[in-house]
Amino acid sequence: MHTVPTLTGDLSPDEFRAAAHAAVDWIAEYLESSGQYPVRSRARPGEVRAALPAAPPEHGEPLGAMLRDFHGTIVPGITHWNHPGFFAYFANSGAYPGILGELLAAGLNANGMLWVTSPAVTELEQVTLDWLRQLMGLGDGWFGEITDTASVSTFYALAAARERTGFDIRGKGMAARSDLPRLRVYCSEHAHSSIDKAVIALGLGHENLVKVATDEQYRLRPEALQAAIEADVAAGYRPIAVVPCVGTTSITSIDPVPEVVRIARRYDCWVHVDAAYAGVAAIVPELRYLLDGVDGADSLVVNPHKWLFTPMDCSVLYTRDPQALKQAFALLPEYLVTRTQDETVNLMDYGIQLGRRFRSLKLWMVMRAYGRDGLAERIRHHCELAREFAGMVHFEGGWELMAPVTLSLVCFRRVPDGADEAAIAELNAAIMERVNARGQVYLSHTKLDGRYTLRLAIGNIRTARAHVALAWSELRAAASSIERRE
Amino acid sequence: MHTVPTLTGDLSPDEFRAAAHAAVDWIAEYLESSGQYPVRSRARPGEVRAALPAAPPEHGEPLGAMLRDFHGTIVPGITHWNHPGFFAYFANSGAYPGILGELLAAGLNANGMLWVTSPAVTELEQVTLDWLRQLMGLGDGWFGEITDTASVSTFYALAAARERTGFDIRGKGMAARSDLPRLRVYCSEHAHSSIDKAVIALGLGHENLVKVATDEQYRLRPEALQAAIEADVAAGYRPIAVVPCVGTTSITSIDPVPEVVRIARRYDCWVHVDAAYAGVAAIVPELRYLLDGVDGADSLVVNPHKWLFTPMDCSVLYTRDPQALKQAFALLPEYLVTRTQDETVNLMDYGIQLGRRFRSLKLWMVMRAYGRDGLAERIRHHCELAREFAGMVHFEGGWELMAPVTLSLVCFRRVPDGADEAAIAELNAAIMERVNARGQVYLSHTKLDGRYTLRLAIGNIRTARAHVALAWSELRAAASSIERRE
Repeated sequence: MHTVPTLTGDLSPDEFRAAAHAAVDWIAEYLESSGQYPVRSRARPGEVRAALPAAPPEHGEPLGAMLRDFHGTIVPGITHWNHPGFFAYFANSGAYPGILGELLAAGLNANGMLWVTSPAVTELEQVTLDWLRQLMGLGDGWFGEITDTASVSTFYALAAARERTGFDIRGKGMAARSDLPRLRVYCSEHAHSSIDKAVIALGLGHENLVKVATDEQYRLRPEALQAAIEADVAAGYRPIAVVPCVGTTSITSIDPVPEVVRIARRYDCWVHVDAAYAGVAAIVPELRYLLDGVDGADSLVVNPHKWLFTPMDCSVLYTRDPQALKQAFALLPEYLVTRTQDETVNLMDYGIQLGRRFRSLKLWMVMRAYGRDGLAERIRHHCELAREFAGMVHFEGGWELMAPVTLSLVCFRRVPDGADEAAIAELNAAIMERVNARGQVYLSHTKLDGRYTLRLAIGNIRTARAHVALAWSELRAAASSIERRE
Repeated sequence: MHTVPTLTGDLSPDEFRAAAHAAVDWIAEYLESSGQYPVRSRARPGEVRAALPAAPPEHGEPLGAMLRDFHGTIVPGITHWNHPGFFAYFANSGAYPGILGELLAAGLNANGMLWVTSPAVTELEQVTLDWLRQLMGLGDGWFGEITDTASVSTFYALAAARERTGFDIRGKGMAARSDLPRLRVYCSEHAHSSIDKAVIALGLGHENLVKVATDEQYRLRPEALQAAIEADVAAGYRPIAVVPCVGTTSITSIDPVPEVVRIARRYDCWVHVDAAYAGVAAIVPELRYLLDGVDGADSLVVNPHKWLFTPMDCSVLYTRDPQALKQAFALLPEYLVTRTQDETVNLMDYGIQLGRRFRSLKLWMVMRAYGRDGLAERIRHHCELAREFAGMVHFEGGWELMAPVTLSLVCFRRVPDGADEAAIAELNAAIMERVNARGQVYLSHTKLDGRYTLRLAIGNIRTARAHVALAWSELRAAASSIERRE
């Protein structure tokens, strides 16, 4: 029974072994010596595509041929998120145990759409997410599920909020109903674009996402939220959800979740906390405050594939009301009926996706490999490095900090004497481009109240003090080089 | 610069190498000897969870400890989708080159949200999907993107259809608008539940998904579609999309796409073809007809993670109107602005997700390893095996085929003389459960016009004639054993 069909291009286990062993060695070497690669790819638009045949292969090729293209064409087209000099956006970095988890998951290729289609996929997901809940210091009563991205987690949360209104939008839809007011969602003006996308996709309408003003530290102002909701209620709108953010993308500001929860409760709003980047930092005892008040919320998204060193993709949606998710999404066609239906969690009931790969394995392996103290130590270290970098910026003439350093992101810029806002923007964009083009480190930018701002986001498991120091020397060198030329 | 921070639980590259080499060897061994595992896991509900600590680890553990738990606790909780005796649902099986691709992608951990954040992720996705388009015999002018599941691909297609109505649902939403009629979507009564979920999530309302009657071969009846649309238009509804299916889940029936396209055009409806399982079979020259008429549609979903031997997850959404997808989803906050924005495709613009892992690598490696002829040979072989199995069922007394064998799925059941429908359902459920419990093979079921039906779905890259023969002998043995006892 162990015979395999012998068809064109069949690979022997030994061919796989040889290629996969070589890949493992390459990955270990790559991760230890990523300094030799430019962080941001130097490929020009269309270059990778042009280097590959425009037509598919008629016949199978040996693995060696495609591995040569991998090294010669693909790797030069990669921007190296696992590089310790990656400081752009928010880090996604994959720790060794997470890579091992992905390898094993690919070998099993299990699909956890139903409990029975791989009990371990469903149950390890539950165990792992309960561990993570405990590590972050949240109370009991949270149901967790893994999604691919925070955007999808937030979309699900707002779908549940929409359904919990009791208007049977699931059944009847939203159009041409005299009984249905406009439904409104609230977040701060610094909330992530994923909130906008969710509101748009759900058919609520972008204009019904209300962006609430923030304070001088870019935090949602509770009184502005209250006023916005009250004005909307008076105008006949129905507020359905508020999405405070713990760690906004531009500046990692932290909205006041306890106050938001208090206000939202008064208006029967779902509270979804977007802590995609920063939530896992609550593992660090002195950062536990980040999730203060979250136990009073309805849902929470955190992304282990960001600051918990788990390879892409792994976002976690927690909710206190899994029934609302099921009410929004569950459907049971006959071809998916199983005998264990009623006694088990079937993850297909909590979202759009039916197929579900074994994502918890890598997260479980990362959590076990480092433990609570190892994870906390890494996150704490990143925050220390950010404070050190901010100190260097602060004490150097001609540079300024643009926002408080709440966690591991530093917002800053070069400000030559007498330069106006347009000149400052142009100069900083040029500094960033020069630094990024040199390839030692990679930064991104944002705008704060219209002011161009550089972002140094620390979060890669391989980033050490020396890489941050290098970023600073690269930035200073770029600035003086550009300013000298002018 | 190559120093790594020495923090609690740091792994050396050598520890990773050793564990990953062992994992590679285990995967090769596992895939060659999966016959020793029961296909369907024998775990009882809660068993995996109970075997693991309820609390997270305080300190890091060696990789060896978690690998022992992997083998002792996780693997027994796996239902083996890569097992050649897996005949349930539709197969997801991962070929060796695909596993290798996943390993390399995990090592790189690239995020293709923007072109610049890894040019190779965006461009290899485009190259690979253009190859697949050519292999399936589709014309030029299709834009492809990879999503995690067909459910998400279909959701995106219908979001684009909703936006293309011109009602600015993106901006204004659907509630409380006097200018917006109810929008309706059409599919056959055998369409997949993912269509229902997409319609629900988009806020269109489940009651606005019209299930059109099928013919004696379970294919959507064009005249019934035409009549349904006309009745709706007369009643003031606005038809926006039709979703014909090429290879329905229950019976792999094939809706008449050319006729559907002709009707849909008359009413300005988006046509989204759900070929999640069967579309890739168009690679086989004599099955090219499966996609007849699809070049006239607006979008198409095919899942390489089903019948193209690519590890989970990898679904492909093709569209002729990528602008409609962008219109539905694109948003550009300042922190995602890049210099190359306008000259490159940025995949974040075509859906909800921002983060995007490097899924095309595994598909590219599978396509290269087998080539057109190797892929076609495997798919053709599965269809041959299905016809052979159907022949055995047909010529054996007391069994009956329940639907035409269009591809590699056989619908059949045991029908003892004189048994009524309830007794037949009970008997076949018992046969299936007995076979599945024995663990040599794994089947699932459906109902056709209320009649309980077993499904033998062939599509695993490792399935050979002997495994199908074993399924047949297991089924016959189970039937006689159960009938003897009665």
